Amino acid sequence: MSFREDGAAALEWAAQYLERVGDLPVLAQVEPGEVRGRLPSSPPEQPEPFAAVLRDLDEILLPGITHWQSPRFFAYFAVSAGEPGILAELLAATLNSVAFIWRTSPASTELEALTLDWTAQLLGLPDGWHGHIEDTASTSTIAALAAAREQTGRRVVVCSTEAHSSVERAARLLGLETRHVPVDEEFRMRPEAVDLTDAAALVATIGTTSTASVDPVPALADACEAAGVWLHVDAAYAGSSWVCPELRWSQAGVDRADSLVVNAHKWLFTPMDCSLLWTRKPEALRAAFSLVPEYLRTSDEAESLSDYGPALGRRFRSLKLWAVLRCYGREGLQARIREAIRLAEVFEGLVRDEPGWEVCAPRAFSLVCFRRSGTDEENERLLSRVNQSGELFISHTRLGGRYVLRLAIGNERTTEDDVRRAWDVIRRESSS
Amino acid sequence: MSFREDGAAALEWAAQYLERVGDLPVLAQVEPGEVRGRLPSSPPEQPEPFAAVLRDLDEILLPGITHWQSPRFFAYFAVSAGEPGILAELLAATLNSVAFIWRTSPASTELEALTLDWTAQLLGLPDGWHGHIEDTASTSTIAALAAAREQTGRRVVVCSTEAHSSVERAARLLGLETRHVPVDEEFRMRPEAVDLTDAAALVATIGTTSTASVDPVPALADACEAAGVWLHVDAAYAGSSWVCPELRWSQAGVDRADSLVVNAHKWLFTPMDCSLLWTRKPEALRAAFSLVPEYLRTSDEAESLSDYGPALGRRFRSLKLWAVLRCYGREGLQARIREAIRLAEVFEGLVRDEPGWEVCAPRAFSLVCFRRSGTDEENERLLSRVNQSGELFISHTRLGGRYVLRLAIGNERTTEDDVRRAWDVIRRESSS
Repeated sequence: MSFREDGAAALEWAAQYLERVGDLPVLAQVEPGEVRGRLPSSPPEQPEPFAAVLRDLDEILLPGITHWQSPRFFAYFAVSAGEPGILAELLAATLNSVAFIWRTSPASTELEALTLDWTAQLLGLPDGWHGHIEDTASTSTIAALAAAREQTGRRVVVCSTEAHSSVERAARLLGLETRHVPVDEEFRMRPEAVDLTDAAALVATIGTTSTASVDPVPALADACEAAGVWLHVDAAYAGSSWVCPELRWSQAGVDRADSLVVNAHKWLFTPMDCSLLWTRKPEALRAAFSLVPEYLRTSDEAESLSDYGPALGRRFRSLKLWAVLRCYGREGLQARIREAIRLAEVFEGLVRDEPGWEVCAPRAFSLVCFRRSGTDEENERLLSRVNQSGELFISHTRLGGRYVLRLAIGNERTTEDDVRRAWDVIRRESSS
Repeated sequence: MSFREDGAAALEWAAQYLERVGDLPVLAQVEPGEVRGRLPSSPPEQPEPFAAVLRDLDEILLPGITHWQSPRFFAYFAVSAGEPGILAELLAATLNSVAFIWRTSPASTELEALTLDWTAQLLGLPDGWHGHIEDTASTSTIAALAAAREQTGRRVVVCSTEAHSSVERAARLLGLETRHVPVDEEFRMRPEAVDLTDAAALVATIGTTSTASVDPVPALADACEAAGVWLHVDAAYAGSSWVCPELRWSQAGVDRADSLVVNAHKWLFTPMDCSLLWTRKPEALRAAFSLVPEYLRTSDEAESLSDYGPALGRRFRSLKLWAVLRCYGREGLQARIREAIRLAEVFEGLVRDEPGWEVCAPRAFSLVCFRRSGTDEENERLLSRVNQSGELFISHTRLGGRYVLRLAIGNERTTEDDVRRAWDVIRRESSS
């Protein structure tokens, strides 16, 4: 193959994709097995040209892709792979660094520490926290809870009923029991209901998955300090909003956390995967994970970031974060976050102004939870029709037992027109 | 930014990097902190052009990069990010799929299952195994051992003293005890010394990190079957060699494994990270990991690969593997594997023919363990001088208490000239 020629074709495909992604059905309109059924069941004997890969990507895979880059992707938490981050992934793959110890990739190791410090500054976090990158918040939470288990020797993880499922998954992996705390009417952990008996860690969430509610971290930090319990803060989605000083109300108490996760791939315009984990107790993470065999022993007096999490081999993930932070700058990040929140306000207003519709949770950040008056089944069918239209993609949750629709804004290409069009489609499908 | 213009510049940088990587010092010639010290300590307020990122990559980061893509990278296990895989990473980042359930990325989910089946065919594995991709072998081993713990309820993991450190790390994470079995004079687990009391799993290694030795899997499979113990096979490095039928001697007994890990990013020419995990007991992995919260519940009757491992969010990793398998074809993969082994034979011959030098372990696959007669300290200083020359990068281990040098071949750009030059440098530095 010719790397330059094939690369130019791949780049042109990517450029055209980003231009037309808004015209593609957001949710893939295929049945299970349909994509696979159109591909050969066996690998080729002889080399094929890269152009054949691009052709099949376009003709066979594309209809089976749910377009996370679409401006009308409003499901879960909407994300963006910013263009500088996309190009940085090309560069990272070209370098193919494997940063398991410092000497195998000094630049990757040091840039990772630096970009985490940069991001801590952007978000207004305390000085001196130790930061590194894991693939996803699931893994960051595993690392934090492993440290908590190591430090306390206890076996219970406490979180609210609204905490992300990855907390319970992590606890199960670590052989820990999960204790769920009820929430108040605004879906926040009720501090008076917290029982820290035998607790290794409490996981507080800032921006829960269902409603983006914010647990009362200051009160929880008090309780954790009194009981010697590790406080892990899951701000995977909402933490990025702290780049805007006016949004730091939700950061109260975070300076007292033992660990904090913010996903740069969620709302900091960085391609998957890039989960940022900070801790003020790096020695506890090292105690949980460090194990240096002879073949990795060196005389370098430099830290290896693989000592802080489950994986030994590590991609050069900081490169994409660095590229985004530089090419967007603090002001660019703030502008994008503020616009997403403004658009969520617009949508919330549209729902509130329409008879027969209801906003089902206080809107925090860029997520709106809403439903049409009627049964759960009617709302479920509405969701299905909206998503089958291909014009937008939204998701759902259950609040107080009721089926509720969720519209999350986070893609940097989303405009007010996209939001108004979404509302038009939702209303249209609700009356059909 | 202009995606096309900046992308063309990034692509040209990548193309030139791949052309000149053989001329760069293989091991980064920097001191700890040097790279970071040359970068601003705070992020920019205003957006910067992408060209500034590329410039700093070239001027500041490049001297701090250890060049895994160099044809004279011979340390650990040498790897290659093949060009189709590099370009596929650009495409995957452009799409930014997050495949936590089928509907969020049908193409990614189905292509992952398909490419794992393709690879199973290429490697001659049994039909019908369930395959998926994790980031690294560390995580694949965590997933396998979690399934073993779930299935057996027992608390001990058995492996040889030559097993990779990730086995003990995984066991520690899972709250399991590791029991190490001694090895024979060729660094293979001694089956008569295996004690499976209370064992959840036995990890057999095909291609150990120190010497690429091969544990006697058939005998170990007998023991595991008799005791109801999960057999996990770590063929992270050597498993790729099975693409060549003449190398399948090392696959004996693998058809009886409960799980198997092969790292496509190690010797299957796929960029980091792409660890392939197969199992014949997918229900045990699901039992260990599956946990579906309301907001991810759908009516799709399709499997979600996040049910088989620790992470919920999943990159579109199969795209790069698919691109490599197609653009290389079975024959291209075989040719590269055979050439790496031939070059290792050449190097082994050079060592054997030289008085005062010794090959320290049977050469299996593409790894040669060797030393110069003399003290450990002399060999350690030799390693240091060789690596400081920048002309090649080798690593070390300890065998029977002695310090031993390791030269591993796996980069697809490595030629016989590179190997002969490596030997010249090693001899030169040994006499200086």
